[in-house]
Parts: sequence; C-alpha cells; structure tokens
Amino acid sequence: MHADVAFEVWSSDLQRRIEDVLDRALTFGAGTPAPLAEAMRYAVLGGGKRVRPLCAYAAGELTGAEPTAVDAAAAAVEMIHAYSLAHDDLPCMDDDVLRRGKPTCHVAFGEARALLAGDALQAQAFATLGTSALRNAGEACALLAHAAGAPGMAGGQAIDLAHVGVAMSLPELETMHRMKTGALIRAAIRLGAACGRPLNAEETGALDTFAEAAGLAFQVVDDVLDVEGSAATLGKTAGKDAARNKPTYVSVLGLAEAKRHAAELREEAHAALRTFGSAARRLHEIADWVARRTN
Amino acid sequence: MHADVAFEVWSSDLQRRIEDVLDRALTFGAGTPAPLAEAMRYAVLGGGKRVRPLCAYAAGELTGAEPTAVDAAAAAVEMIHAYSLAHDDLPCMDDDVLRRGKPTCHVAFGEARALLAGDALQAQAFATLGTSALRNAGEACALLAHAAGAPGMAGGQAIDLAHVGVAMSLPELETMHRMKTGALIRAAIRLGAACGRPLNAEETGALDTFAEAAGLAFQVVDDVLDVEGSAATLGKTAGKDAARNKPTYVSVLGLAEAKRHAAELREEAHAALRTFGSAARRLHEIADWVARRTN
Repeated sequence: MHADVAFEVWSSDLQRRIEDVLDRALTFGAGTPAPLAEAMRYAVLGGGKRVRPLCAYAAGELTGAEPTAVDAAAAAVEMIHAYSLAHDDLPCMDDDVLRRGKPTCHVAFGEARALLAGDALQAQAFATLGTSALRNAGEACALLAHAAGAPGMAGGQAIDLAHVGVAMSLPELETMHRMKTGALIRAAIRLGAACGRPLNAEETGALDTFAEAAGLAFQVVDDVLDVEGSAATLGKTAGKDAARNKPTYVSVLGLAEAKRHAAELREEAHAALRTFGSAARRLHEIADWVARRTN
Repeated sequence: MHADVAFEVWSSDLQRRIEDVLDRALTFGAGTPAPLAEAMRYAVLGGGKRVRPLCAYAAGELTGAEPTAVDAAAAAVEMIHAYSLAHDDLPCMDDDVLRRGKPTCHVAFGEARALLAGDALQAQAFATLGTSALRNAGEACALLAHAAGAPGMAGGQAIDLAHVGVAMSLPELETMHRMKTGALIRAAIRLGAACGRPLNAEETGALDTFAEAAGLAFQVVDDVLDVEGSAATLGKTAGKDAARNKPTYVSVLGLAEAKRHAAELREEAHAALRTFGSAARRLHEIADWVARRTN
C-alpha cells in the first residue's frame, strides 16, 4: 500500500481487500447449513462503503500495522455492522425493503432466515476477532462487544425506536448517534490502532475524539442525504426518516445548519489528528470523505 | 462448595450463585437505555434450570477451578442461551407466548425490544467472557462464538426452521440437535474446564464425548416432556412440536424407544467420565438429572 497514492486508490484497494477477507471469513464447512450461509453472505458481501473497515485500516496505518494484521478486526466490525442492518430492516424494526441497492435480507430470504443470519453474523464477528493475532484478543472481543451491545449500538437503536414521532433535543440526538453509529466507528479505530504499536493515553484520547467527531459527521451527512438524495444514488430508501417521523439532524437543526454542523465536525476530527502528523493522513482523508460523500 | 453435599444442594447453591452473577453482569450504567436493560434482564433472570452454567461449574470442578473462576464463562453461555430463546420465541420463528412460566420477551415488551434485547445479550456474553481471567480469553470467545453461530446453535436453528412438516431420519435429527443444543452445552463444559488445570487430548476428547451424549439426552427428554408434560410443569407451551409438525425423537422413534434412547445416552455420558474418577462426580450427576428430569 503506497503511502503516496490518492485516497480514492487507497480506499478502493482496501475495499477490494476487505471484500476478499469477508468472503473467506464467511466461507463455511459442510456442517453449516447452506441456506443460512447464503443469507449471511448476502447481508455482508458485494456492497457497502466499508466505512468501518477503512477506519480500522487507517488507524492501523497510524500505528504502523500492515493491512494483513488489521484484516480480522476490519472484518469483525463490518460483520457487526452488517448484522445490525439485517435486523434493523426487519418488519418489526424499520421495515425496509432496499439496502445497498438490493432487496433487504428478509425480503430476499424471509424474516426467520434474516433474523438467524444476523444472529450468526454477530457470532462470526467474535469468532473472527477471537482467533486473530491481536495482542489481547479477549480484550478486543470485549471492546467490540461493548460497542455492539447495550451500552453502544444496540442501546442506540433502542433509543431510536423509542423516539419515532417524539421530539429530541440536539444533545439527545447526539447521544443516540454516539451509541448507534459512533460506538462501532470508535471500536473500528481502536481495534485497528491496537494492531500496531501501543498508544499512550493522550494518543488514545485524540483518536477517540477523532472517532467521535467523524462518527457524528457521518450521521449528520446521512440525515442530509436522506433529505437530498434519491434511492438511486443512496442504494437505500430515501426520505424514510421523515416518512417515519424520526428526529434527525435536519429536523432538529434545519438543512443549512445541519450542513454547517457537518463541516464543523469535520474540522474537529481533523484537529484531533494534529498530534499524529502525517501518520494520520488516511484518517484525515476519511473525515473529508465522510463529510463530503453523496451516497 | 462441599464435595460431599447432595446434587440437589450443590445445584441449587450454584443456581442461586449464577443468578447473582448474571444480575451483576446485566447491571448497566446510566448510559444504557433502561427499557433495553429491562428486557435483557427479563429474558435472563429469575428462571430456567441453568443447565449450561451448571455444566460449566461441574467441568470447572473437574479441573480444580473454584466457582469464582468459572462465573464469567457460566454467565456468558447462559446469556447466549437466553438470547436464543428470546429470538426463537419471536413471531417469525416459533411464535411462542410462554417461557419459564412467564410471557415471552416479545409478549412482555414488543417484538422490536425483544429482538434488540437478544442482540444485546449476545454482545454482553462476549463482553463478559472477553474480560474474564481465563488463560486465553480470545480463544474462549472464539470457542463460544463457534458454538453460538452458523456452525453451531444458529445453524441448528436454521435446520430446524427448514424442517417444519418435513420428515427427518434419526441421523439428521441428531445432527440438528448436536448443533442446536449440543454445541452450546459442549462449549459450557469446555469453557468451565478451561478455568482450571489444562487437560490432555484424551481428557478433552472424553469431555466432548460426555457433552455430546448428555446434550442429546437433554434433547430426547425435552421431546418426551413435550408430549408427556403440561405447561404447568414445563413453564412453557407443551405439545408445541407436534402442533407445529416438527420432527422430534418421539415422532421419529416413538415414545417408548425415545425413553430407551435417553437412558442409553445417559450410560454413554457416564462411560465417558470414567477416566476422571471421582473428580467427575457432578458431571455424572448432571447426566442423571438431565435424563430423569420432569421439567
């Protein structure tokens, strides 16, 4: 991975790489029922921006870890993300039919298989991370579990569920997104960084600050795109938050202010990286990418 | 824990113990939404035979591990079991309304919260095991993940789903149950054993043979009780397998032969323990308990 290639080259190389890694991590022996494996692979492979794996690889680059050392962590966080989408799209949750430009998992395979595929993907994330060469794989599993579970992603989704049609203040909205998407992005960055040289407390804090700002920027832009984008560019249903009367950055701040907030968060993310100098180049570029994306 | 107390005393002491351990492991800080925590606790606490934790403690006793060293492993396997019940009972799966003598999780809290509670419980299992004092917590997480995931419990449930109203041979039925319930019971025993002195390959093989036989015996008796029991004694809906036209040991073997098979499996389980002598006393008693239980 040349240090001097453009972000587009770096990211598309790693997007191809994580696709292969995930493909291998989701190749099962004869003992695993093919219909379940098929639904799991459908939910993960062949799509997605791979934001979380890219965060892991970029953080690994920051601490001097080769991509091969980061593969397991990158795959594990993406499996957690993919399982959450499969469950989120179920009729009892967001009841969505389009994801990554394809029918959602339950539309393709039925609710029961989509539910089980999500369950099995969560397990597979820990199977992958637990056997990785990380210095302390047990701690890594616990870190991912906290990010995925009640204090993190699942907790954020519970808050989301409880606020359909209920107004939220900006701090409440931020708390929800810190848990729902921020926690897993932070885990991706921490786990990727853990694949290289140890960081001191100041550096760990700076990375967490970056992760927090970049994660929120990602969500603000998501809310903007939900209003401004189309299903064709997004690969998922557009306008669904407004249709379901969910609080968003746009509904709380208005469109112009939401865009300004995204730019602010990008600046915060960049500022947090200063202590690392040029080693943080890819994380810096990820913040740009996340804040300026159109899908 | 006195070595000479009766099984009933040993098991009820440890059932109280695991209740406390689970209670603590499911006590969350202010950042975790209370409605989610409530549903998670509902799905786990205050009921159940705690077969898997007892297997873990008994296997720990075999390798000289104090209960305190086994707590995390015992809690983790029970959280995986409880999440699987919460998801299994959902309308898109078995659609059941009664579990451990109470309304099922989705009846009590709605489908979305039951789904999220199950998801968060799976994560919490790995959070608990990953931070445990086990020699290799990463490997332990991977072992539990394989048992819970596509090659294990989730895979067995996928086979189960695919065979509603479809005839199964005895070997097919055994494969399904080896995955659906056997894999997690084996994980409980392996993880419990891993909390004490290391085992050699022969001993590990013997424990796996025990786990396999005891796990199948548990399932055969489950099928017998589904026919012979009542909801009042079982704490869950009786006769539901027959009603849903699912293959069971009773439908494949007939009632009398199924009971004979359970007794055979109990003998196999006991035989596998011979190499351990009296250190295996509690596992020996667990096989008796599992094969002779009436609920």
